[in-house]
Amino acid sequence: MSKINNFRRYNPLIDEWIIVAVNRINRPWQGAKTEKSGSSEKNSDDVTSSITTNPLAPGGVRSSGAKNEDYLSTFVFENDFPSFTEFDGCADKEENSDLFKQQEVRGVCRVICYHPDSQKTLAQMSLEEIRTVINLWHQQYVELCPKYDWVQIFENRGAVVGCSNMHPHGQLWASNYLPSIPQKKHDSQKKYFEKHGKVMLVDYLDQEITKKERIIMRNEHWTWLVPYWAFWPFETMLLPNRHVARFTDLMEAEKQSLSAILRDLLIKYDNIFQCSFPYMMGWSGAPTGTYLKTDCSFWQLHLSFFPPLLRSATVPKFLAGYEVFAEKQRDISPEVAAATLRELDGVHYSCK
Amino acid sequence: MSKINNFRRYNPLIDEWIIVAVNRINRPWQGAKTEKSGSSEKNSDDVTSSITTNPLAPGGVRSSGAKNEDYLSTFVFENDFPSFTEFDGCADKEENSDLFKQQEVRGVCRVICYHPDSQKTLAQMSLEEIRTVINLWHQQYVELCPKYDWVQIFENRGAVVGCSNMHPHGQLWASNYLPSIPQKKHDSQKKYFEKHGKVMLVDYLDQEITKKERIIMRNEHWTWLVPYWAFWPFETMLLPNRHVARFTDLMEAEKQSLSAILRDLLIKYDNIFQCSFPYMMGWSGAPTGTYLKTDCSFWQLHLSFFPPLLRSATVPKFLAGYEVFAEKQRDISPEVAAATLRELDGVHYSCK
Ligand SMILES: O=P(O)(O)O[C@H]1O[C@H](CO)[C@@H](O)[C@H](O)[C@H]1O
Ligand SMILES: O=P(O)(O)O[C@H]1O[C@H](CO)[C@@H](O)[C@H](O)[C@H]1O
Repeated sequence: MSKINNFRRYNPLIDEWIIVAVNRINRPWQGAKTEKSGSSEKNSDDVTSSITTNPLAPGGVRSSGAKNEDYLSTFVFENDFPSFTEFDGCADKEENSDLFKQQEVRGVCRVICYHPDSQKTLAQMSLEEIRTVINLWHQQYVELCPKYDWVQIFENRGAVVGCSNMHPHGQLWASNYLPSIPQKKHDSQKKYFEKHGKVMLVDYLDQEITKKERIIMRNEHWTWLVPYWAFWPFETMLLPNRHVARFTDLMEAEKQSLSAILRDLLIKYDNIFQCSFPYMMGWSGAPTGTYLKTDCSFWQLHLSFFPPLLRSATVPKFLAGYEVFAEKQRDISPEVAAATLRELDGVHYSCK
Repeated sequence: MSKINNFRRYNPLIDEWIIVAVNRINRPWQGAKTEKSGSSEKNSDDVTSSITTNPLAPGGVRSSGAKNEDYLSTFVFENDFPSFTEFDGCADKEENSDLFKQQEVRGVCRVICYHPDSQKTLAQMSLEEIRTVINLWHQQYVELCPKYDWVQIFENRGAVVGCSNMHPHGQLWASNYLPSIPQKKHDSQKKYFEKHGKVMLVDYLDQEITKKERIIMRNEHWTWLVPYWAFWPFETMLLPNRHVARFTDLMEAEKQSLSAILRDLLIKYDNIFQCSFPYMMGWSGAPTGTYLKTDCSFWQLHLSFFPPLLRSATVPKFLAGYEVFAEKQRDISPEVAAATLRELDGVHYSCK
């Protein structure tokens, strides 16, 4: 594993940081290739071509030369091309003027394999298998939260969202600082609590339960809904029914019913366009590390899904010019998206 | 043209608005299709297949039934599937609590065809042809600025950034309010001016000229550079060499030399991977409409390019899970990107 020092830089125009991690450019790419514009060369990507040599499969040999365990359920390893490493000592990398602001970053990046079978997806796994993944998330949080300010667990599912290997897996990037987006969520939830004396997303869920329009599904411990302010066509959020600041605060019963609602919601997603529905999925909860000593009770844990497909299994919504220069725009209303999801069958299309 | 009332909603978690424009879902799609995940169905998209019936070409018939002029240089028309229309009167669409905030939006969306030839790109056009596009931009700003708070001129070039028709064209979306991103730029430039008594991006350019590392190209009136805080692999910014708040403040000589540097930079872009380089391009300058009565002299006009390609003509950088849930991450340093662009040939690869 290369031990190159990475850093982040500040964009003063839009008040946002960017990580510069230059050791990732040569990582293996089995993900999407676009058509070569202006030529007739076709997409030559085949997601199943390399299953026998898959570097994420049990016994697979990774580009670093490391060989995976012959794992039977889940498997975690350190990313061979990490954005964060524990190397430090390049204080000359720091700059601190209003226009040129750069900080050294440290952390750890891991790959979380969900299942030994490269053809499976979370949606197709059994309740017990999903529960194993949830336990693994828990274990990772318990290990890393004391040390890192932010532990981001996420999954890029499908080539269209930049997944570079189709084996069922997610990732974990933990850093010694609070990144831009959780920082915003921290500030806004704090402000809301100071103003209303209530936890923003707990208050929000209460109101959504009354309004009913955007709720898709509920069980004893969880509610799955389309946020009022959703951007992605079928963007959704999964919220605990009670106030829970961090993943590690979940009770056993909540983790058990999480596996059930996760499976049900992923099946509905796959049923929209009868395909393995691509998405970005990510957990957000109260920050950790140095924040463990501060009051973060204004936070509410949530799991977000940002799936890009819009019209069919092959036509995504693009975050294009207007969205990046001015403002995000969506093409179906959150209420229509919620109704569509609500009415979908609960049995996976492949089982019929 | 359907006259459906559109609106925007506020995301209180990350302090950002989202436009909901439900009349766009059925617009014709000749843009990219992704592979159907989990199936072997291939991308059936062919960007050149429909040239004879191209709805953007001279004489082309659009889905609304309208027929284009037999134009010989440029051509502007109102988008048949606009995100903004001038219809209003649905005040019941407004909501205004801290969690549920919705505003009606009004405006106009136009398509700006650059050239009658569907096979051309801006990079391949003559200086005179590029100058004609610049004049058209100017004319559109002059017409729309008095009426709208924000006039966003942009181009999505290439299927990979969501361009739905490959005919050389850009777009203009003008709105009766300042969208989220220009609002941030407004606030940060204002704050910088109040603190330093200098225009942020003028000060920034001065320092970059001294540092030299990220400047790619300059002419009498313009400087092309990679911002210190760039996210996209070959993200760049084009800045006027003097303080210019709005596009309409540009002098004739500046518009003339804009056509030259635009052509030179687009050729360099195409030469990186010897392909018609995809990008999102957008102008940003001081807001207009009701802002014309306020002091906006802290603004500096800039043209941004956000091109997604990372490693080759077919492998883009994805704005994936970590980026959308935590923080943006780039794989090559801004300095390496600048050096790469600086050293590239100034002659278009197709002319050799
Ligand atoms: O208007 P077009 O070209 O059909 O659509 C394209 O640009 C729009 C504005 O950036 C985006 O909202 C769409 O997702 C994109 O496909
Ligand atoms: O780490 P991977 O899966 O190779 O890469 C993917 O996820 C990363 C984290 O969201 C992104 O930065 C990359 O652009 C994307 O291709």
